[in-house]
Order: sequence, then C-alpha cells, then structure tokens
Amino acid sequence: MKKYTEIKDISNLQETIKDAISLKNNPFEFEDLGKHKTLVMLFFNSSLRTRLSTEKAAKNLGMDVMILNVNDAWNLEFEDGTIMSANTSEHIKEAAQVISQYGDVIAVRAFPSLTDKKKDESEFVMNSFIKYATVPIVNMESATAHPLQALADAITITELSKKAKPKVVLSWAPHPKALPQAVANSFVEMMQNMDVDLTITHPEGYELSEAITKNTPINHNQEDALKDADFVYVKNWSNYKDYGKVLSQDENWMMTKAKLGNAKFMHCLPVRRNVVVEDAVLDGEHSVVIQQANNRTFAAQIVLKQILEEL
Amino acid sequence: MKKYTEIKDISNLQETIKDAISLKNNPFEFEDLGKHKTLVMLFFNSSLRTRLSTEKAAKNLGMDVMILNVNDAWNLEFEDGTIMSANTSEHIKEAAQVISQYGDVIAVRAFPSLTDKKKDESEFVMNSFIKYATVPIVNMESATAHPLQALADAITITELSKKAKPKVVLSWAPHPKALPQAVANSFVEMMQNMDVDLTITHPEGYELSEAITKNTPINHNQEDALKDADFVYVKNWSNYKDYGKVLSQDENWMMTKAKLGNAKFMHCLPVRRNVVVEDAVLDGEHSVVIQQANNRTFAAQIVLKQILEEL
Amino acid sequence: MKKYTEIKDISNLQETIKDAISLKNNPFEFEDLGKHKTLVMLFFNSSLRTRLSTEKAAKNLGMDVMILNVNDAWNLEFEDGTIMSANTSEHIKEAAQVISQYGDVIAVRAFPSLTDKKKDESEFVMNSFIKYATVPIVNMESATAHPLQALADAITITELSKKAKPKVVLSWAPHPKALPQAVANSFVEMMQNMDVDLTITHPEGYELSEAITKNTPINHNQEDALKDADFVYVKNWSNYKDYGKVLSQDENWMMTKAKLGNAKFMHCLPVRRNVVVEDAVLDGEHSVVIQQANNRTFAAQIVLKQILEEL
Repeated sequence: MKKYTEIKDISNLQETIKDAISLKNNPFEFEDLGKHKTLVMLFFNSSLRTRLSTEKAAKNLGMDVMILNVNDAWNLEFEDGTIMSANTSEHIKEAAQVISQYGDVIAVRAFPSLTDKKKDESEFVMNSFIKYATVPIVNMESATAHPLQALADAITITELSKKAKPKVVLSWAPHPKALPQAVANSFVEMMQNMDVDLTITHPEGYELSEAITKNTPINHNQEDALKDADFVYVKNWSNYKDYGKVLSQDENWMMTKAKLGNAKFMHCLPVRRNVVVEDAVLDGEHSVVIQQANNRTFAAQIVLKQILEEL
Repeated sequence: MKKYTEIKDISNLQETIKDAISLKNNPFEFEDLGKHKTLVMLFFNSSLRTRLSTEKAAKNLGMDVMILNVNDAWNLEFEDGTIMSANTSEHIKEAAQVISQYGDVIAVRAFPSLTDKKKDESEFVMNSFIKYATVPIVNMESATAHPLQALADAITITELSKKAKPKVVLSWAPHPKALPQAVANSFVEMMQNMDVDLTITHPEGYELSEAITKNTPINHNQEDALKDADFVYVKNWSNYKDYGKVLSQDENWMMTKAKLGNAKFMHCLPVRRNVVVEDAVLDGEHSVVIQQANNRTFAAQIVLKQILEEL
Repeated sequence: MKKYTEIKDISNLQETIKDAISLKNNPFEFEDLGKHKTLVMLFFNSSLRTRLSTEKAAKNLGMDVMILNVNDAWNLEFEDGTIMSANTSEHIKEAAQVISQYGDVIAVRAFPSLTDKKKDESEFVMNSFIKYATVPIVNMESATAHPLQALADAITITELSKKAKPKVVLSWAPHPKALPQAVANSFVEMMQNMDVDLTITHPEGYELSEAITKNTPINHNQEDALKDADFVYVKNWSNYKDYGKVLSQDENWMMTKAKLGNAKFMHCLPVRRNVVVEDAVLDGEHSVVIQQANNRTFAAQIVLKQILEEL
C-alpha cells in the first residue's frame, strides 16, 4: 500500500479485513516490521480514538511515534504563489518535505471548514501532503473522508455478521452542532465494496454527495428503511446541499431501542446520548460501539503494516 | 493491586515502601514486566512532576505510554440520563470503556472545582473511571486525594528517619490562590498508617475534613506544634468549611529557618518562595523537597509494578 | 561534551561534523548508547523542526524522550529573593533540580522577549537551567543563539562544498514580524570557526551585536556582497540597536533567482515565500533547505552522542 487516504487505496478488501482480524488475535506478531521506522502524527484538529488507536497500532508494529498538534506550531500556507506577508509562516511545500525527513509515514487529521464547500471538497490539506511529502500519507479524517473509521466498521461487521449478505442501514440522527459528512461518506463507500445490502435513511434534503451514494437506495422513511436490518449505523451529518447547515434537529430521528429491534447498533463515537441515540440502546446488548472503537487499532495496524511492507 | 486511587488500596504499606526503595537502587530490574502493556495518562489539569515521574516510572517497567490532555479533545458528560444537547460531546461511559481498549492501565488527573463541595467530595471523575473502565485506574491527583504524592512522602520519611517513631508535623502555610486539600488529606491518611507521631497545625477554622483527620491531634499554635519535630510538611490548602475560600494569608504562618530548627523540610512542590517558605529553608541543608520529587518516580513505579503483576 | 548551549561547547568542530555525517549514513549505529537514558525536552515556545529532529535524534540513540510544553504547566520564577505572591508558582531553582531527577539530559527552547535587550542578552532562562540543573543542558534555541541549527548548517556546507574555502554570505531579508537574532548570531559564530570566507550583508542600521560579528566583513550593498558566493544564507532578524524593532521591510532585500546565481540557497525554515525569498529559488535546484532540515537530526544526534559518552 502506497498511502491510505481513501477507501480505494485498499487493493484487496476481504484479505485486508481477514488480516486485521488475525492481527487482533496476535497484535505483536509483526513487532519487528516497524523497527527503526517512525510514524509522525499531525493533528490540525483534536482527537481521542484516532489518536490513541493509531499510536497504539504503530507501537504494536514496533514503530516510533512522534505527535504534533500543528496549530500549536504554526499556520501553514496552502496556496501557490502567495506573498506570505500575513498570517501563514510556512508553506506546505516545505512543511511536507521537511516532515518527510523525520517520519517514514505521516498521518494527518484535518477537518473541513463546513463553510467553503468547494475548498473542502478539494481536500487541499490531504492532497497537498500527498503531493509534497516524500513518504506515505495516512488519512486520520479529512474534510470528506474517514477511511480508518470505515475500515474498523468493515472489520466489525465482518466479525459479527451471521449472514451471507446482511442488511446494513445508515441512519441519519439529529445533532445540535454542524458535523462533517466524512464518516458517512466513507462508511457508504466501504459498504459498497462489501457483500452487504446497504440502505441510507435521512430526512428529505439531507442527501450526501451523489458522487458518494451513486446507486445506493435512499429511503426518507426511517421506519421502513430499518425493517429487517442486521446492522444500523447511526450518524449525524450537516446538510450537504445547503452546505454545512443544521436544517433539522428533529428528535423523531433519534435511534431508540424500539426502532432498532434485533439489529446491531453502530456509531463511530463520540456520541451524544439521548440526542443521537437513547440510553437504552447504548446500554443494551445490541450496541457494538466499544468493539468498533477497539477495531480502530487493528484497522490502523493493518494499514500501517501494508505500508511498511512496501517501504 | 487492582487500582490505586486511595491510600487504602495498598495492602502492605511497609513492604511496598521497602520495595520502592529497592526499585530506586535498581530501576530497570523489572523492565520486562511492562512489555506490550500500555499506560494511558489522562490530564484534565496541568502537571509537571506527576507527568514526568509517572511516565518515567512506566517506561522503567518497559511499558508504552500514551498521554492525552483531555480538555484538548472533548468535554465529558458525567451525569446519567442527560439529554446531551449542550456542551458535552461524549459520556464517561463510552470514554472510559473506549480508553480501556487502548490502555492496560489508565492514570487520571482531575482537580476539584473548589466551588461545589458535594460534587468534589463525590469524586465523580475518578469514581466514574473506576466504574466504567475495564482496566485498573491510578489517581494522579483527584478532587480530594493525591495518593502517589503521599506514597513518595512515605518513602522519603522512611529513607531519612533515624528514629523508631519520628515526630511529623503538617503545617499549613499562606498562599494567594485557593488550593485543593488533596495533598494534605492524603499525607494525613498516609501518616496515620505509618509508625509516626503526627500533629497538624493550622489557623483556627482551617480544619480539614474530620473524615480524614479523625483522632490526629490539631494544634492552632504553630510554634508549639513544631517543637521537637523531625519532619515538617508545609502545605497550603483553602478552607474546607467555608469551602474553597482563602480566609487567611497570614504571613506569620510562613515556614522559616528559625521555626524549622533541625527538622527536615518537606513540600510536594511547586512552592512559592517567601510566601509558603523562606529562601533560607529551601536553600538550606534541611530541605528534602528534591528527594521527595525524585521519589515520585519510585512511588509510581511500585504502584504500576503491583498493578502489572495482577493484570 | 558537558552541555551544548553555545557553539564553543564543541571541542573539535571538524571531527564533530565528520562524525555527524557518518551518523547520517548509519543512524542506528549507537542505538545502545542511550539505553535507560531519558531526554526531557522543555518548550517555552512552539517548534516543528527542532521538536521532531531532536526527538528523532534521541530515539536513534535509544534514548527515551519526554516532552513538556512548559507554559501548559506553570509560570516559572527566575529572580532571586522574590516574594512569589503574584503570577509565578515555581522557582527555576526547584524546577531545574526536579526535572534533573527525571531526565539524564534536558533540552530547552526559550525565545527572547525582543523588548528587554538586557534581560534577553543575559540568557536568564538558559543560564538558570545551566546553573540549577544537575544534568547536561542542550539549547534548542534561546534568546540569542540557536547552536543546533548552526551545527546542521555547518554539516550541510561541509557536505556540499566543492572548494577549499567557499564564500559564504549571510544576507538579511525582509519580514513582517519581529524575529530574534538567534539564528544569525549562531550561524556567524559557527562560520567564524570554519574554513570559509564569510560576509554579512544587511541594510544600514541592522548590525548584529559586535560581540558576535567581530572582524567579519559587513557590506551594505547586497549585490556586491553576493558576488561569487558559493552559499547564501538568507535570514531576517529584527533590529539589534533599536532593539526588536522592524525598521525595514524593503522588498529589494528579498532573495531572487537572479541575485542567487549559482550559489546554494540556505534558510533555517520556516520561510515566508515571496517575502524572504521568491518561489523560483525555493523550487529551484540551488535550494538546500530540505537537506538542512534533515541535518537537524544528525546535528542533535552527534551532540547527544557526545553528551551521553561523558555521562
């Protein structure tokens, strides 16, 4: 693997998931692979699960890890040809090349503005690192994608599925703040690559980008969409058409135990209790959110392993 | 040891102190014990000594260490049943379980508000981690206790004591800011478990919780209390009855070389010179504050060692 | 080496440079040397290159690294005899001794105020650490010096020089913000110790301290100074006489491809494009700034190696 910034960087998904589950059973099997190799983790935004699971994954492989909160250091310039006389003190061209001197792999987290759709969709931060760094880049959640989360979700569904082709529903949920579409986007793309029956349900007008959803069925009737579901992935996202806006906080879309039935409840966390999902679901036997969080480690570890093998 | 959040988690204090002193002489003796084990250190508040000494202790045992400033990441919800539509974005139930996926031991620092006595005394942060985490918890200073500091103090007194039953005085000192009672509480509890003659001296009205002081003699006459002392532990705490208030900054309570006599001077640091204690004491031969700070490493290390042995 | 806070702490510069280049070819040759040794890195100011390269250097030698942003922890008092009743909560006397209990080497970054010349020139932060710490101190950029950068620059020039006595020009550049003289000072001092022909060029009135420049030729005509240069080191510094002021932002002093000719372009980074230097230089074949940044690792590594050898 040359980089992992989008789902399609995985060349063989089924084998990758199988290998991740194998790593989970024997996390230190490849602890010599990362010897003398350094992962630099760059955060433009805060992190809990991604930070800890990716750091742990790298260390399980024997890598050294260096972590930098970019905003503590300096403002980066991403435009070409700028006269840098204002607030930016270093250009991404230098920064990416320089960090490539210190790290064998660079992992980057950079959220969208949710105000400038075109700029967010250009993925200028992630793509600038890909362009100028001389080492592989890993996406720890970018403006439009969270492929490490999606891989952990795929691992979780694979571990738990009892059917040939389980029914998976992505169900929008209300939230007081404007959140990115990244998790939903990557989950949809990942499921499209798996042998599952995927349905998306959300209030009218909350359509994700058509470049993502393609032919995946969209149902605005949540109850109908949830029928016979095996896995229900609940997630808020802010409006994509009226970009970054919170047009609905309709609490009828909150996931409840009654709606969930016997399906497994999935969420990437953090989750707002009794807003996104009621306590009874999270505290019940159908929630698999902790298992998902645990699988973040092995998603990151299989990605780093495949990258290290090609260094 | 299943956790170390309060003094009484130590089952055999004398042996624990003896083992800590032995570790100090041979810090890397058990460097294989922590192999493939991770300590996650969570800071709700800033730290110097606790941060560096605990990190070093873990590494001396061969553990990996991951450090997270919680406030950089997200606001945690601690109440049950809340509709989380305001400022908190993750419930401690999820957070503690999730972090337990990445760490084999979790160390937590969370200071009191000093405004809500009941809430502070409930130790809701520490107790929530104990309740919801699935791995052992270590207290790196909580609302009402600082047991790692107290263990370092016990080690220091044991190392230096030349008598069967030394006289130990805890002497209140003035301070411009409202400080927690945590260090004083844990020191008193620790000394009550050692073979020492403990006296507490402070201005009238500055009584610590009776649940802590129990039958320990309290003397409001500092001069009288200090007579024939072997160890004088100086520390400010804000008022407990009139909770969190600074009612006195009486400089007559500052420790001086004259008052100290031949006793050893102890303080947990940081210390404000010429407010809490005069320069002549800190710069003199009776100060053992640096030795105390050094023993923080071995207090943390013996605790982590006993926890690792039962994992 | 007992410490590295100024250029003259290097006893044999030529051999040190040679050894650094050898480390670059075999970075893990001495990975047992730092076993069970800890580097504590203290930042009073933010950092990218220095942080990552020094951390990596220490790890290449097998050291453990602990990093602390000092301002997150507490305000230090540096004055003697102060009644610490205001904003400082710990005296450097205690802090330096305490940190010496946890680290075998302490590296410190502390920028100048650029408002109080006398205080900055006293190097009170670095010198207090030297005075009170009981372990070796490494300067990661202080008020008036950046000796690790200068050593990386010396390594770079040695690697690239094709002549017995190359012509090296330090050329002032415009910048919107007031920057320290530290990099320029240390570069000048380093070059004075190498077999190079050094010239300094800057607008009139921008003289560095005479204690630094000594007999080094200063030419206010940039074009004339740059003639036949082999290496051009471009750097802004704020005014030294009218201390810390930005008296000129004259864009005529910006480095251009035309001015540079066939010389190698050097800069410590971060650099403001099209203010300090035009794109064509940084994107051209004569820029060696990435190589300089890479050599930061081996400058730090040779320094730490020499320190470890005398511990």
